[in-house]
Amino acid sequence: MIIVLKPNTPQEEIDAFQRLFEQQGLGTHLSKGVNTTILGLVGDTSSMNEKTIAANHLVDHVVRVQEPYKMANRKFHPEDTVIAVASKAAAKDNHNNGFAFFGKSHFSVIAGPCSVEGEDQLVGIARAVKASGATFLRGGAFKPRTSPYSFQGLGKEGIHLLELAKKATGLPIVTEVMAIKQLEVMQNVDVIQIGARNMQNFDLLKEVGKCGKPVLLKRGLSATIKEFLMSAEYIMSEGNDNVILCERGIRTFDNYTRNCLDLSAVPYLKKVSHLPVVIDPSHACGISWMVEPLSKAAIAAGADGLMIEVHNNPEKALSDGEQSLTPKQFDSLMQKLEGYIKLEERSL
Amino acid sequence: MIIVLKPNTPQEEIDAFQRLFEQQGLGTHLSKGVNTTILGLVGDTSSMNEKTIAANHLVDHVVRVQEPYKMANRKFHPEDTVIAVASKAAAKDNHNNGFAFFGKSHFSVIAGPCSVEGEDQLVGIARAVKASGATFLRGGAFKPRTSPYSFQGLGKEGIHLLELAKKATGLPIVTEVMAIKQLEVMQNVDVIQIGARNMQNFDLLKEVGKCGKPVLLKRGLSATIKEFLMSAEYIMSEGNDNVILCERGIRTFDNYTRNCLDLSAVPYLKKVSHLPVVIDPSHACGISWMVEPLSKAAIAAGADGLMIEVHNNPEKALSDGEQSLTPKQFDSLMQKLEGYIKLEERSL
Amino acid sequence: MIIVLKPNTPQEEIDAFQRLFEQQGLGTHLSKGVNTTILGLVGDTSSMNEKTIAANHLVDHVVRVQEPYKMANRKFHPEDTVIAVASKAAAKDNHNNGFAFFGKSHFSVIAGPCSVEGEDQLVGIARAVKASGATFLRGGAFKPRTSPYSFQGLGKEGIHLLELAKKATGLPIVTEVMAIKQLEVMQNVDVIQIGARNMQNFDLLKEVGKCGKPVLLKRGLSATIKEFLMSAEYIMSEGNDNVILCERGIRTFDNYTRNCLDLSAVPYLKKVSHLPVVIDPSHACGISWMVEPLSKAAIAAGADGLMIEVHNNPEKALSDGEQSLTPKQFDSLMQKLEGYIKLEERSL
Amino acid sequence: MIIVLKPNTPQEEIDAFQRLFEQQGLGTHLSKGVNTTILGLVGDTSSMNEKTIAANHLVDHVVRVQEPYKMANRKFHPEDTVIAVASKAAAKDNHNNGFAFFGKSHFSVIAGPCSVEGEDQLVGIARAVKASGATFLRGGAFKPRTSPYSFQGLGKEGIHLLELAKKATGLPIVTEVMAIKQLEVMQNVDVIQIGARNMQNFDLLKEVGKCGKPVLLKRGLSATIKEFLMSAEYIMSEGNDNVILCERGIRTFDNYTRNCLDLSAVPYLKKVSHLPVVIDPSHACGISWMVEPLSKAAIAAGADGLMIEVHNNPEKALSDGEQSLTPKQFDSLMQKLEGYIKLEERSL
Repeated sequence: MIIVLKPNTPQEEIDAFQRLFEQQGLGTHLSKGVNTTILGLVGDTSSMNEKTIAANHLVDHVVRVQEPYKMANRKFHPEDTVIAVASKAAAKDNHNNGFAFFGKSHFSVIAGPCSVEGEDQLVGIARAVKASGATFLRGGAFKPRTSPYSFQGLGKEGIHLLELAKKATGLPIVTEVMAIKQLEVMQNVDVIQIGARNMQNFDLLKEVGKCGKPVLLKRGLSATIKEFLMSAEYIMSEGNDNVILCERGIRTFDNYTRNCLDLSAVPYLKKVSHLPVVIDPSHACGISWMVEPLSKAAIAAGADGLMIEVHNNPEKALSDGEQSLTPKQFDSLMQKLEGYIKLEERSL
Repeated sequence: MIIVLKPNTPQEEIDAFQRLFEQQGLGTHLSKGVNTTILGLVGDTSSMNEKTIAANHLVDHVVRVQEPYKMANRKFHPEDTVIAVASKAAAKDNHNNGFAFFGKSHFSVIAGPCSVEGEDQLVGIARAVKASGATFLRGGAFKPRTSPYSFQGLGKEGIHLLELAKKATGLPIVTEVMAIKQLEVMQNVDVIQIGARNMQNFDLLKEVGKCGKPVLLKRGLSATIKEFLMSAEYIMSEGNDNVILCERGIRTFDNYTRNCLDLSAVPYLKKVSHLPVVIDPSHACGISWMVEPLSKAAIAAGADGLMIEVHNNPEKALSDGEQSLTPKQFDSLMQKLEGYIKLEERSL
Repeated sequence: MIIVLKPNTPQEEIDAFQRLFEQQGLGTHLSKGVNTTILGLVGDTSSMNEKTIAANHLVDHVVRVQEPYKMANRKFHPEDTVIAVASKAAAKDNHNNGFAFFGKSHFSVIAGPCSVEGEDQLVGIARAVKASGATFLRGGAFKPRTSPYSFQGLGKEGIHLLELAKKATGLPIVTEVMAIKQLEVMQNVDVIQIGARNMQNFDLLKEVGKCGKPVLLKRGLSATIKEFLMSAEYIMSEGNDNVILCERGIRTFDNYTRNCLDLSAVPYLKKVSHLPVVIDPSHACGISWMVEPLSKAAIAAGADGLMIEVHNNPEKALSDGEQSLTPKQFDSLMQKLEGYIKLEERSL
Repeated sequence: MIIVLKPNTPQEEIDAFQRLFEQQGLGTHLSKGVNTTILGLVGDTSSMNEKTIAANHLVDHVVRVQEPYKMANRKFHPEDTVIAVASKAAAKDNHNNGFAFFGKSHFSVIAGPCSVEGEDQLVGIARAVKASGATFLRGGAFKPRTSPYSFQGLGKEGIHLLELAKKATGLPIVTEVMAIKQLEVMQNVDVIQIGARNMQNFDLLKEVGKCGKPVLLKRGLSATIKEFLMSAEYIMSEGNDNVILCERGIRTFDNYTRNCLDLSAVPYLKKVSHLPVVIDPSHACGISWMVEPLSKAAIAAGADGLMIEVHNNPEKALSDGEQSLTPKQFDSLMQKLEGYIKLEERSL
C-alpha cells in the first residue's frame, strides 16, 4: 500500500501517522520529494481498507499495490485448480474415471434450457445434448426475471425434474440458486450457480461457501475483474475452493448485442487466478446465430468450458428463446468446436 | 408492442401469427410496406415478454411502446405519492402532525453514519444531525462489503443501537436489509433500505413488499431507469405502495468520483413515476467536499430528499470515512441548503 | 511518479535503472519491502510517459502522482481565470464595461439555434434571447452529423448570417469549427467552439490554440476528466489561455436521456483547474422539458454559465428540434434561473 | 420508420401530419389502438432524421426500422467486399498475383511499430515481420497523443522512412492520417488509416473518401456499431468503396485492460455489412502477453485480418512499448496462428 501525503504536512504529524501503522505490525518506508511525501506500507495489507486510510486529513490518495484477494490469487496458488464432478454418464462410457472436469487440459460443455419447463422438454433436451457431447446439463428452476409479471420458474418442482433428467442421462446438473432457503432442495444438484445479479449478494455467497458443492459464479454485468475475484474470495473464505468463474457479458454503451462478451477476461483471469474460467456466449450476445463464432473464439482465448442454451422449441420457450439453439444446431456446433478444442490441446 | 416481421414472410404465416395474439385477447393491426411488414399489438401487453416474441422465426425485431411497469407508472397514478412516517421528534416539535414526509411540497434529510459502530458514536451523531434539521437517522448494521475481510457491520446489535438512538432523539430510523432473515430483527425500523447491490435480489424485494414498511430502494450502479422501476414494481406488486426511489450514482468509464451521480434521473423519474425520489450524494461521489454542491444541485433538480453520511470522526470511521461530513460540516450544509429548499417551494 | 518493480529484481539492475532517471535530472527514492520494491521519481515528470516506463522488463506497474496537465492545473494557477469578451450589447446597456464574462462572480448564458438556417430565423431568435437576458448568441454553421445524408449546415453563408445577427443585437457569437480551413472565415466570431467529437482532434486543438480567440471546448462523450483537461492543455500550450470547459453529457449504459449530464464535473473541474466551466443541458438530455431542472441544478453545482438551444419553431428545426426551447420557453426559463444565480452570489 | 403518436391527438392533426410525409413521396400506414396511435412510414427513409420528427408536438417517440446506412449495408450488397492492394513482396513470391487481400477466404496481417522512429528501426522491423509472414507494414508518422508534451511522431520524415521500408521489403504500407493537409505527403502510402479518435472527424472522412486509396477505419472507443458504419458510409458516399473496418477495443467501466476488445463486433459487422473486418488486439488490451490469445480468438470469431504492434526494443519504444511484441515473439505468434487460420479455411 502506497500512501501519498498532502504537501506541507508537518513532520511530527507524519511521524505519528507512520507509528500508527507500525503498531499494527506493518513495516513502513518514508520517501520525501520536493512536492510529495510518500509513505509505503510493507507486510500483509490485504485486510486493510484503503478508503479508511484515504479519509485521514494528511492523505492525498492511496494506491494499493497488493491485490485484495488471496485465496483466489495465483501468486499464492501457482497451480491450476481442477474441479472434478462425479458423472454417471462419464462412468458409463468409462471416460475420465467417471468424472467431468473443469480446468487444465479438460474442456467442459454445460448445455440445456434457460428454464426447466416440463419433464418431456427437459429429458428430451438432456438426451440430445448428451448425445452431442455435452458434459453437464443446465436448467433454471428459480429464475431471476426483471419483471414480476414474467414466468418465475417452476421452483422446487423444477429441481425435481432436473433430478429426473440426471437419472435418465447420467449428466451432472447445474442450476441457479437465488435465495438461501432454496439450497435446502438442492441436495442432488451437482454444481450450484450464482447468477450475475447475485454476484454481490454477500450473504448468499457465504452460504454457498459452506455448502461444499462446486459453485459456478457468474460475473455481474458491471462487475470489475477485481470485484469478481473478491466475490469468489467470499465463497472460498468459507472453505469452499471449488469455484468456477463464468464470464457472461458486461454492460457497455452499445446494445447491438444484449451484453458485450468480454473475452479478454479469459486470459486475464487465468493469469491472475488459478480458478477455471467458463464462457456463456448465449446470455452474452442474446442472439442464437452468434453463439457459434463466440464459442470458437472463447476456446481460442483459452476458456475451460462453455455454457450453452439449448431448447427443443426456442420459439415457444418461456424465457430467452431468441438466444437458444435447437438440439440439431447444438449438435452441429459441437462438431465445429472439435477442431478448436484439439488445437488448444484439450479434450472433453 | 410493435412487431417488425422479416421481409418476404408468406401471408398465411402472418395470419397464423396474428391469430395467436388475438386468441390472447389482444387487438392487432397489420401494416404492410414495400420492404417491411409491421404487426401492432393493442391492449395490455405489460406482462408479455418481448424477447419471447423476438424468438419467433417470423420476427425481425420487437419494439415495446407501453412501459412494462404499471403500479409505479404515473400514467395510471397521476398524483404524487406522499409517504408519511411517524416521527416522535416531529411530534415533540408540534411539526407536521408528528410525521416526516417524502413527496410533494415536503423535503426530507436522512443523515447518519455509514456503519453503526457504538452507542456513544450513534447517539451523539443522532443528536447532532437532529439539531441541524435532519428528519431521519440512517445507520448500517448489516454492511455489504466488497471484501470478506472488511468490517461486516454489528448486525443485530447494530439494530439495537439504532433503536436506542431513536428513543433518544425521536428520529425515525432507516437501515439496510441484506438478507430475508434479517427482517426478523427490524420490527422497530421505520424505513427498510434495499442497497444498490441488491436492487435485483428479487426474493428480497418480494419479501420487503410483504413487510408493510416504507422501502427506500437504491438504484443499482448499472441499472437502467426501466430496471429500477421494475424493481419498485416487484415491491409494489406484493401490496406495498410506499417505495422511495434513491439515485446514488452509476458506473461509467470515468472514476474521478466513485460513481457518477445521475441527476437527470430526478426529473425523469418524477415525470414517469409518482414515487418520491431521494439523492445520496455521499455514496455517489465518495468525496466529502463534493457533498455540498451536489446536494444543492439535487434540490434544484427537484429531489424530494437527501441521504447524507455524517460521522463524528471520519478519519476513524470503520467504513466510508472519506465521504462523511462531520456534524459541524453537516450543520453548515443544512444552513446552505435552506435557500434552495425555499426556492423549490418545499419545506422540511 | 511511483514505479513498482517486479519481485526479485537483482540489485545491480535496479541501480542501473535508477541512474537512468537521475541522468534526466530527476531525484529518486528507493523503498524496499519484503515483496515489493518501489522507486519514486521526484521532480517535473509531467512530460514523461508512464507507459514507456511500464514497458521496461523490471517494472510491474507505474503510478502517476503528479497530474499530467500543468497550464490548466489550479496548483500552478490558484486564481480563477476570468474570460472577457467584448459585447456591444453590454456596452449599449452600460453593463460590465461592455464585456460579457465567464468566471468568478459572473454568469453567462449562451443561447441560440443548433443550426443557422436563415437570416429571419437567426436574427429573430437573437433578438428574443437577448431580450430574455442571454449574453451570447450561439448557432452552428458547420454541423457534425452522424449521417452523411443529414443537413451539414450552411457553412460560410451561416457564418455570414451570424455576423448579421451580431450586428443586429450586439451579442457576441459562438460557433463550432470542425476543420482547420474553416477558421479562415471566422475572423468575426467571438468564441470558437470545439465540439465533443473533435475534443481529441489534436491538429485542430493546436490551431485554435494559435488563433488568439477564446475557445469553448466541449468534453468528448466518453472522455475522462483527465483527457478533457489534457485537450485544454493542447490549446493552452500554444499560448491561448482563454479556454472555457463545457460539459455536455457523457455516454453510459442507459439511454433514457441522449447522454448523461455529469454535473459532478462542475465542482471537480473547478477544484483541479482554474478555467471556467459551462454546462450544455440541451445536448446532454436531448429533451426540451428537462432543460429547466438541469439548468437550475447546473447553477447550484457551481457552473459559470449555460449553453441553451432555442429555436423559433422546434418542430421544423433542421437539427435537434426535440431539445430546443421556444423563445417564450427560454424567457420563462431565464426568469426561473434568476433566484438560483442570486443564491450563488453571481450575476449575468 | 414508425412514429408513435401521443394519446388523444385530434384526428385532423393526425391527418395533416400524415399528409406531410405523403407529400415527400412516402407511403404511410395508420394503426389506431385504444391507447396508442402509430404512423408507419414506407419507402426510403434513410436520409430522414428521426430526431427532427420526434420534435413534433404530436409525437411520443420514433423508432427507426430501416438501417440509416446504405452503401455499407449487406442488404443492398450481399457479396463480401474483397480489397486488393498491390504488393511487390507478394509479386516477388509469385503469391496471390502480386496482391495482398482483405476479405473472403483471405487473411491479412498488418505488423510494425506504433511509431516510426528511425530508418534502421523501421527497415529492421519490416524485414523481420515480412520473414514471419506479415502482409502489410504499419507505422505511425503522425501520432495522436493525449498529451501535448508527448512525442508527436516524425511527421513527413516518418512517411519518407515508410517509403524506404516499402522499397526494402516490398510490403505495402499502412499509416494514420490525422489532418487533411497530411494527405499531400501520402501519395505512396497504400492504405490510409483513420484513428479511433478521428472516427467522427467528418471533414477528414469526406477527404479520404475522395483520395481513392483503401481506408482502414478504426472504431471510436465509444462508438456504437451503427455510428461506426455511418462513418464508413461517409467515406463510401464520396465514392470510395474500399473501407476496412477495424475494431480496436471500446471503453467500459473496467480498466484491467486498456480497452475492452469487443469480439462480438466481428460476426455482427460481417452479418450486417459486406466490408472486411480487422482486429487490433495490441491497442485493445495494451499488454503484450495478451496479444496471442486475443489474436487466436479474433481469427476464430471470423476476422479478416489482424493489426499487430511489433518493436525491436519495446522497452525503448517512444510510444506504446508495453503492448509491442519483439520480432521473435511475433514470429512465434504467426506460427501459432497458422492452425486457426487453416481451421477457418482461409490463407494469408
